[in-house]
Amino acid sequence: MAVLETVPVLFPVHESSSSFLNTSTIIALTVFFALLCACIVIGHLLEENRWANESITALLLGLCAGVVVLLVSKFQSSRILVFSEDLFFLYLLPPIIFNAGFQVKKKQFFKNITTILLFGVFGTVISFCIISLGAYLLFKKIGITNLDIQDYLAVGAILSATDSVCTLQVLSQDETPLLYSIVFGEGVVNDATSIVLFNAVQSLDINNIDTLTALKLLGTFLYLFFTSTALGIAVGLISAYIIKTLYFGRHSTDREVALMMLMAYLSYMLAELLDLSGILTIFFCGIVMSHYTWHNVTESSRITTKHAFATISFIAETFIFLYVGMDALDIDKWKSSNASPATSVAVSSTLFAMVLVGRAAFVFPIANIANCMKKRENTKIQFRQQFIIWWAGLMRGAVTIALSYNEFSNSDTTSTEDSALMITSTIIVVLFSTVVFGSITKPMIEAMLLRNAKPMVSDATDIPSLEDLNISFLENGDPSEQGQQANNPPRRKNSLQLLISNPTSTIHYWWRKFDDKFMRPVFGGRGFVPFVPSSPTGARDETS
Amino acid sequence: MAVLETVPVLFPVHESSSSFLNTSTIIALTVFFALLCACIVIGHLLEENRWANESITALLLGLCAGVVVLLVSKFQSSRILVFSEDLFFLYLLPPIIFNAGFQVKKKQFFKNITTILLFGVFGTVISFCIISLGAYLLFKKIGITNLDIQDYLAVGAILSATDSVCTLQVLSQDETPLLYSIVFGEGVVNDATSIVLFNAVQSLDINNIDTLTALKLLGTFLYLFFTSTALGIAVGLISAYIIKTLYFGRHSTDREVALMMLMAYLSYMLAELLDLSGILTIFFCGIVMSHYTWHNVTESSRITTKHAFATISFIAETFIFLYVGMDALDIDKWKSSNASPATSVAVSSTLFAMVLVGRAAFVFPIANIANCMKKRENTKIQFRQQFIIWWAGLMRGAVTIALSYNEFSNSDTTSTEDSALMITSTIIVVLFSTVVFGSITKPMIEAMLLRNAKPMVSDATDIPSLEDLNISFLENGDPSEQGQQANNPPRRKNSLQLLISNPTSTIHYWWRKFDDKFMRPVFGGRGFVPFVPSSPTGARDETS
Repeated sequence: MAVLETVPVLFPVHESSSSFLNTSTIIALTVFFALLCACIVIGHLLEENRWANESITALLLGLCAGVVVLLVSKFQSSRILVFSEDLFFLYLLPPIIFNAGFQVKKKQFFKNITTILLFGVFGTVISFCIISLGAYLLFKKIGITNLDIQDYLAVGAILSATDSVCTLQVLSQDETPLLYSIVFGEGVVNDATSIVLFNAVQSLDINNIDTLTALKLLGTFLYLFFTSTALGIAVGLISAYIIKTLYFGRHSTDREVALMMLMAYLSYMLAELLDLSGILTIFFCGIVMSHYTWHNVTESSRITTKHAFATISFIAETFIFLYVGMDALDIDKWKSSNASPATSVAVSSTLFAMVLVGRAAFVFPIANIANCMKKRENTKIQFRQQFIIWWAGLMRGAVTIALSYNEFSNSDTTSTEDSALMITSTIIVVLFSTVVFGSITKPMIEAMLLRNAKPMVSDATDIPSLEDLNISFLENGDPSEQGQQANNPPRRKNSLQLLISNPTSTIHYWWRKFDDKFMRPVFGGRGFVPFVPSSPTGARDETS
Repeated sequence: MAVLETVPVLFPVHESSSSFLNTSTIIALTVFFALLCACIVIGHLLEENRWANESITALLLGLCAGVVVLLVSKFQSSRILVFSEDLFFLYLLPPIIFNAGFQVKKKQFFKNITTILLFGVFGTVISFCIISLGAYLLFKKIGITNLDIQDYLAVGAILSATDSVCTLQVLSQDETPLLYSIVFGEGVVNDATSIVLFNAVQSLDINNIDTLTALKLLGTFLYLFFTSTALGIAVGLISAYIIKTLYFGRHSTDREVALMMLMAYLSYMLAELLDLSGILTIFFCGIVMSHYTWHNVTESSRITTKHAFATISFIAETFIFLYVGMDALDIDKWKSSNASPATSVAVSSTLFAMVLVGRAAFVFPIANIANCMKKRENTKIQFRQQFIIWWAGLMRGAVTIALSYNEFSNSDTTSTEDSALMITSTIIVVLFSTVVFGSITKPMIEAMLLRNAKPMVSDATDIPSLEDLNISFLENGDPSEQGQQANNPPRRKNSLQLLISNPTSTIHYWWRKFDDKFMRPVFGGRGFVPFVPSSPTGARDETS
């Protein structure tokens, strides 16, 4: 089994095994599953502790296991499994992102869509430029001379990829919905952007950079963004239509759940096949499935999907952090990097400083630009919240490591030493940011937002705004039914005024109209199948 | 990704792919997931049709897809994925067997345990001997001369492995519980036996066969059987204890579900690591988990585990049949077998005839022996039922194919031609038995048992026997509570008499006593956690 490419040196295969399986694979899997169980139990015991969470537990447990393996193998290898991009991108990432889309509070997400896109697209580009430039200027002073322009640009792209997995665990959707939707939404869009950037860098012809190249990149990004989203929505709608029309619940709950799982995964695979962003696709597939498909299935399918998706995502997250932790002590890379500890520390701190600066350089300006577009005081992003957005997005995770291996592990142009140094430095940045920032963020948010600012309770946007009330009034009070014809014309005018003064809310209002009139009758959804009060995201957010 | 070892000849990797993944892997996965979705939809549409089921749909769809790939590749290859034993034994088989243990009607299963063990152990050995002997005597007449004794014995072991997956789909646990528990239980025990036999054959020194070898084999089997069962029970109990003691539901439903999944899988991996039968282990782990652990979790975890395990198992089953179907047109094997169609047909029919005879040679004798041990007329296995047990166990499945590849694909001693012929013949037997017997069995059972024999309604053992009533009377009527001291002594005597006259029921009675007094207070279970009426197997069978 080579998805988990095992290191057979450590565990010689028994000749007389009564099983047909490779013993080293079995050992690796046994160790991994035992560690996963341990993570869950320890994570449960540490639940009340606000400094720890499953990610950090898994990371530290992985590190400990790595040390044990290192000692057992007499410093030959610390790894039972070699980090595999396939395993990560094919099996671990899709369920996490799908579940995020499935459980996201859609109303909140779409309310902040402009801010999210600004952060995710322009923010990532700014961060990419600053990190690349900083690395280019500072690495020479440390004494790293063998990297070319392409490598510096790759470093920028690699370290611009934020870690949406850890963010999900650190921020609470219920306590800080605005921050959660911005930081997590940014993470999803960021993924698409940084992959576009990374691929662009890899296929770049350095000698021919002009304005046309930049425009081409922009075109590629826009193409990627819209087609990926459209594909996700299409697959989600097809699943809703099939389940609604064929009425699967009549025969089997299991078949409904299986079809939802398989079609979600199919959307990811289709996107990868068409060279789109699978992450964007499966995210939007999750959103559409929770809005339509989820309402078309039986009650037990709803409970099952809600928890099964969350469980699979949870296992995948824990697995990734365990993996990163165990992978960190990659003795071969440390040996071949051949750098002094001082150089390693210098490179890692430079990279991390660039990450800090690069993120600050877009979070605060963009947040203020977004604030300028908003008219109401209570929807603006305050400085405290800006600070937390900056802070919570500093974590780097498995995507960074995967991209780093992809760029530097088989590089032809770069020297082996510097390539290995880049990989080890990336690992240090990931470990440091996850452990330190992951553990500090939760208490910090509590301290900054929830305690110091009592009147805000949790988040500014939780307080219903005038527009919200207006909209709910418009929606609930259908004039023709209530015979209040006199009030009708001014309200109509009102909604036109709203479109100009507050486009997001008005678009939401027209979307609701369109959804009720055309979409739900065809694809199902709440109100068009027997009503059940609960929902995968909690009852209130199903109307978005 | 080499779990699904892709055939890159067919799909050259794009150089300029925007994804980091191997394009051939993505194509293979996309095709597979699309076919899986198609299977589910078609299976749903054919639900009312009693000749078809998901297995046959998947098998035929896989064959069609194989033909398409064959045409597209201009007869170079029919396979997108190479059959991988790892994929099958590590990822597809465990969830199926675990789910079977989790959902099995425990009372029925343990009531028939003697019969099941007789069928599973002695039946498999008899079948193995007859198939080996038959192949040895008949193959020479067909013109196959290059096989040695070891190959003939391997053929016997390979074709003695029944297919419990298809049985699960063809027999209904609700309509024919006795047949279901015997045929399926036999399948699980059969798995352990045939793997022991197969390994014994592979490590056999043909020149030194004596009584000691046979005794050693028996010892190995007994060791394997008891340690595997004990390991499964132990892991199940540990999971129950952990979840009960730490009270996981307090914090998270997802963590409970994740822990159950991971520990079940861990039991399988541990068993494989210790060279035991993973299938027996995970089967008993499933039984213990449904008896204890399942009652210790929250209501939504119960619904989720019940359906999620069934769904995963269902997907794995469909995947296997799709896989076998696509794999059947393995053009390389057909080419290298180099045999005339007549020879192929002759070998396949010989093998299948041997399977028929081999199974008949133990089903009828053992059923009659089992009948002799039973005193009550209505628990005896009637001739009609014997016939269905014989018939339903004739299907051969993925285990057979996996073993066949293991023996013949890299054989050093056997000629390439005859090895390839053995593999293709095995595939023909599997396809034929699954499609023909799989589709005929269901209508045949309806015709033979449910229609012709109206007074039996469904199954003899559904009618409560005198013993059952006696036991429930003993259990429910605790004399000290009801103050009926006068009736107490005769009843005690009664239960001692029962132990001699009907050991199974009496053991069950004492087990209940032991369970209530010692096991449930420690490990939880129904009655020792807040009572909830439903259960994963339906309410009635939780008391076993």
